[in-house]
Amino acid sequence: MNVLAVVKVGSRLISRCAGNRGRGRIDARRSLALLAGCWLLVFARASIAQPLPSWNDGPAKQAIVKFVADVTVEGAPTFVAPGDRIAVFDNDGTLWSEQPLYFQGMFVLDRIKAMAPQHPEWKDKQPFKSLLAGDLKTALAGSETALAEMMVATHSGMTTDEFQAQVVDWLATARHPRFQRPYTDLVYQPMLELLAYLRDNGFKTFIVSGGGIEFMRPWTQKIYGIPPEQVIGSQGKLKLEMRNGKPVLVKLPQVDLVDNEAGKPIGIQKHIGRRPLAAFGNSDGDLQMLQWTMTGPGPRFALIVHHTDGHREWAYDRQSKIGTLDTAWDEAQAKGWTVVDMKRDWKKVFAFE
Amino acid sequence: MNVLAVVKVGSRLISRCAGNRGRGRIDARRSLALLAGCWLLVFARASIAQPLPSWNDGPAKQAIVKFVADVTVEGAPTFVAPGDRIAVFDNDGTLWSEQPLYFQGMFVLDRIKAMAPQHPEWKDKQPFKSLLAGDLKTALAGSETALAEMMVATHSGMTTDEFQAQVVDWLATARHPRFQRPYTDLVYQPMLELLAYLRDNGFKTFIVSGGGIEFMRPWTQKIYGIPPEQVIGSQGKLKLEMRNGKPVLVKLPQVDLVDNEAGKPIGIQKHIGRRPLAAFGNSDGDLQMLQWTMTGPGPRFALIVHHTDGHREWAYDRQSKIGTLDTAWDEAQAKGWTVVDMKRDWKKVFAFE
Repeated sequence: MNVLAVVKVGSRLISRCAGNRGRGRIDARRSLALLAGCWLLVFARASIAQPLPSWNDGPAKQAIVKFVADVTVEGAPTFVAPGDRIAVFDNDGTLWSEQPLYFQGMFVLDRIKAMAPQHPEWKDKQPFKSLLAGDLKTALAGSETALAEMMVATHSGMTTDEFQAQVVDWLATARHPRFQRPYTDLVYQPMLELLAYLRDNGFKTFIVSGGGIEFMRPWTQKIYGIPPEQVIGSQGKLKLEMRNGKPVLVKLPQVDLVDNEAGKPIGIQKHIGRRPLAAFGNSDGDLQMLQWTMTGPGPRFALIVHHTDGHREWAYDRQSKIGTLDTAWDEAQAKGWTVVDMKRDWKKVFAFE
Repeated sequence: MNVLAVVKVGSRLISRCAGNRGRGRIDARRSLALLAGCWLLVFARASIAQPLPSWNDGPAKQAIVKFVADVTVEGAPTFVAPGDRIAVFDNDGTLWSEQPLYFQGMFVLDRIKAMAPQHPEWKDKQPFKSLLAGDLKTALAGSETALAEMMVATHSGMTTDEFQAQVVDWLATARHPRFQRPYTDLVYQPMLELLAYLRDNGFKTFIVSGGGIEFMRPWTQKIYGIPPEQVIGSQGKLKLEMRNGKPVLVKLPQVDLVDNEAGKPIGIQKHIGRRPLAAFGNSDGDLQMLQWTMTGPGPRFALIVHHTDGHREWAYDRQSKIGTLDTAWDEAQAKGWTVVDMKRDWKKVFAFE
């Protein structure tokens, strides 16, 4: 049932493997069976012996390792078949940083600056006017309509292929204002290890983010090892058009799904069609996803990343402007969900440290 | 570059394996390397030597095998990395039968009969009145509004879990009127072999159907080996509600996506986020999916199942009431897409024959 038992059996088999290697000539048929056992062990040890190296030993790491052992040890009453091991991750603030603004917001600002020469009317129109004058505070202080206008201007009217090229180009050239590094450098090293650890243990990992699905998909395979079809996010409507005899998909200015709060279980049902075993988030936007995951039968796991490290990353929570962790915090305390204290639990936040 | 070369190398290695087995005692280290080779070969031969046993040798089978060889032989200019090998399949008329009516339509009719005692008002209301009186023709001859009313009555107002249970129960008890067998017995054996063959060759297989996503997902893993998250279909809107302190998802009577014709590339983009390498369909509803697939760069494959076997299955096409194959047929002829003649190309249609 737990990892120690597996490692114990493993150690016995390994000394057996080592011993046989010394004998030189052995019966071929027995060697087959033993070889298969040894190989399995090499793989098993690689993922069991030192999982999660950037995590300090503590309640969060222990809870993760215990949950994985519970669902993966065959014969255990808590065992779950590999195909049913679904894990869902929020993105902003859970897999990468979200300060001083969601990175997709930074993309919007940069795109508006880049598009301004083609839009002379923006010089006299809010929120574009403030933004182009360098007054970010006024631009972002506007109503939701103003923000929606900026989203429409930068996220619709082009084909899906064109938009993807813009995202790839931006990530290759833009730099985070505090760290002066590509935004994709600001992914959390411990979470990358967690994704790999879960996959090594037969989990299928998904992103379920309030961010735009088309904004994430061009880079999640390379950065997180998560293919486009396992990325769920907020989405606009699409339209099929023929251009020069070839079909293209055009991004329309209408919203199809806001994949946040109640939208997260809906996004999960639409895209995955079954309830996850484990969910990872950092804010109230993730509460319903965590609840949806935890109310299924059998073993379940919920984890919240708490931003406590103002030195290496940012310290914020509860009523903060971005990444509010208020009702989800209360529920995590009441239900005993795992809470990661970034300062305490993570040896490293970013790989570049 | 082609399968024959692989089989040739394979045969040499296999005689080596067989020879060594006879010697009894051999050097352990050499046996390891050889063993690994033999094992790989057993797997390789299983999928390469006799793929698609229910397919007659002919242009359709040859085209499939050639395409798979083109994208899987490493070093070939047409090679595609395993993660990028996406294949999409229509369901009704492509993976299972669709006569005398889409099977989901049969489910609707049976559900209305089952629900009638709770709906006394249906006795005087079309299309329910005709349907309950056994006059299927009048019920189905009604306007699109009438059909929509039957869909709403049977596909909304319950939770996703409740609907799933209804589908599972129906499949376990309902029998196809002609074959007197469960509907899931009417899947095409050659297409099951094709799905397995593609997966053995590193493809990820998806369903992209005009049918309901929630209607297919409860059984596609068991019948096709395709997990729920790889099933795309027409969808209604969902609403998250708390019931007895637990979240449930309620199926609403509003349509979210009609995954047919232009809706298929949209469904593919929303769920998969990249263009498939290969697409399989049988009707004009699949045309845009086939076009979308074929206009990508590099090697591509499009196949249409043509219903020509009135004895073993049904013979129909062009302007038929269900499964019209008209513009897609013309385009397949013009562009040289592969067309399966069920009578000519399939040794077997159903496993039970």
